[in-house]
Amino acid sequence: MTNNIERPLDLLNQSKGKEMIVQLKNDKQLVGVLLAFDIHINIVLDNAREIENGEIKKHLGLTFVRGDTIIYISPANIK
Amino acid sequence: MTNNIERPLDLLNQSKGKEMIVQLKNDKQLVGVLLAFDIHINIVLDNAREIENGEIKKHLGLTFVRGDTIIYISPANIK
Amino acid sequence: MTNNIERPLDLLNQSKGKEMIVQLKNDKQLVGVLLAFDIHINIVLDNAREIENGEIKKHLGLTFVRGDTIIYISPANIK
Amino acid sequence: MTNNIERPLDLLNQSKGKEMIVQLKNDKQLVGVLLAFDIHINIVLDNAREIENGEIKKHLGLTFVRGDTIIYISPANIK
Amino acid sequence: MTNNIERPLDLLNQSKGKEMIVQLKNDKQLVGVLLAFDIHINIVLDNAREIENGEIKKHLGLTFVRGDTIIYISPANIK
Amino acid sequence: MTNNIERPLDLLNQSKGKEMIVQLKNDKQLVGVLLAFDIHINIVLDNAREIENGEIKKHLGLTFVRGDTIIYISPANIK
Amino acid sequence: MTNNIERPLDLLNQSKGKEMIVQLKNDKQLVGVLLAFDIHINIVLDNAREIENGEIKKHLGLTFVRGDTIIYISPANIK
Repeated sequence: MTNNIERPLDLLNQSKGKEMIVQLKNDKQLVGVLLAFDIHINIVLDNAREIENGEIKKHLGLTFVRGDTIIYISPANIK
Repeated sequence: MTNNIERPLDLLNQSKGKEMIVQLKNDKQLVGVLLAFDIHINIVLDNAREIENGEIKKHLGLTFVRGDTIIYISPANIK
Repeated sequence: MTNNIERPLDLLNQSKGKEMIVQLKNDKQLVGVLLAFDIHINIVLDNAREIENGEIKKHLGLTFVRGDTIIYISPANIK
Repeated sequence: MTNNIERPLDLLNQSKGKEMIVQLKNDKQLVGVLLAFDIHINIVLDNAREIENGEIKKHLGLTFVRGDTIIYISPANIK
Repeated sequence: MTNNIERPLDLLNQSKGKEMIVQLKNDKQLVGVLLAFDIHINIVLDNAREIENGEIKKHLGLTFVRGDTIIYISPANIK
Repeated sequence: MTNNIERPLDLLNQSKGKEMIVQLKNDKQLVGVLLAFDIHINIVLDNAREIENGEIKKHLGLTFVRGDTIIYISPANIK
Repeated sequence: MTNNIERPLDLLNQSKGKEMIVQLKNDKQLVGVLLAFDIHINIVLDNAREIENGEIKKHLGLTFVRGDTIIYISPANIK
């Protein structure tokens, strides 16, 4: 599972098309399917939902997230 | 719907002319029609309104938003 | 009204000589006539006034504002 | 009075030798004669005084101020 | 043990494959096996867990962490 | 006294060997003899002492201070 | 003792192999032997310990510290 990750962005590349959890600096989380990212860690999530205290607060749809607001990105479904 | 998004800025490009929600770091939101953006994610919104706790607080008109204050940008009308 | 805005700075260019509201990150606002800006969104406002809770608190005169303190810039008079 | 300001730094250049108010991000103000500045908006104030709630709290003398702590710079004496 | 550390990134390189504690700016910690890093200190942790007040709060799995949220990275098992 | 200050760093250069007050963003101050600085305003203070509410809290000795934590640098003894 | 410090990084270079106190922006301190640093002031401390209110809270071992979290670095033993 952890093969072929030479650089951090390799993981984001392998995560395209998968549902990911994005932890934001404002204590909220976004969940959605990772479609794209760039070197600033700006990302696009499809079917994004905003999560607060474990509950879905809002459906955001196809969403652009600015990289400097992100703490971590992890899989929604841990294998 | 999610076709042709290779990079995050592709989504912003496809969103020109559409009404978008812009979540700011100060917990407020702006809603307006996306007219322009640059690589810093500075954007221009037409007919912008400031939203706080789900209510329109102010009509701002044609507004320049500095990129480093933005958390995410999502469609006002989820398809 | 929204013609000819290819990039966000085009809006600032068109706004020169107009009275603008500048929302700052510290929750205050400045109002004044936009005279100049640069790519950092450093700006010059003429006849600037500091606004807090909708009231003029101070007359500042011809004022330099550092770009990284700005959230948005919108027209004082919405057409 | 507002002639010849093409770029924001033009205003700082014209303000050399004049007493200016420097609003800091920590809610305090410095007042002093602007002697020098650079593109980071690092500045030198002569005879600087620290102001809090409108009162002089400290005499600082010839002072270097780091640019990223500055919100705005305006004239101490509005013409 | 401390041989061959000429530059800070040398330590991260030697720590690949080891379980590390990552102290975040939001007072939380992540624990996991360091798989990759880059010059921004963006890192990938395998089998990451979020720790708060010394207790595991969440299992995150294979996780990308943005560098600018990190205070320090130390070994989970001190030799 | 204010001669020959073309750029802000000229003042720091003239202040080498003098006792200076360094106001930090965390509301504390350092006092010490300025030995060196660079363009990031990283500085070295000799015989540095940490001041809080006007009192010496700690003797720090020969100290490196990271530039981005500094608000201003002024002389300990105002002429 | 203060000879040969032309630039701030010279002090860090002379401090290699010595026990140093690292003041962090989150009000905590790290103490440990400085092994390496780079121009971002990322550092490596050996035998690092986290200090809060003057007491050792945690033994961290061989630790990488990200530069942008550091306020100052001073000697643990003042000569």
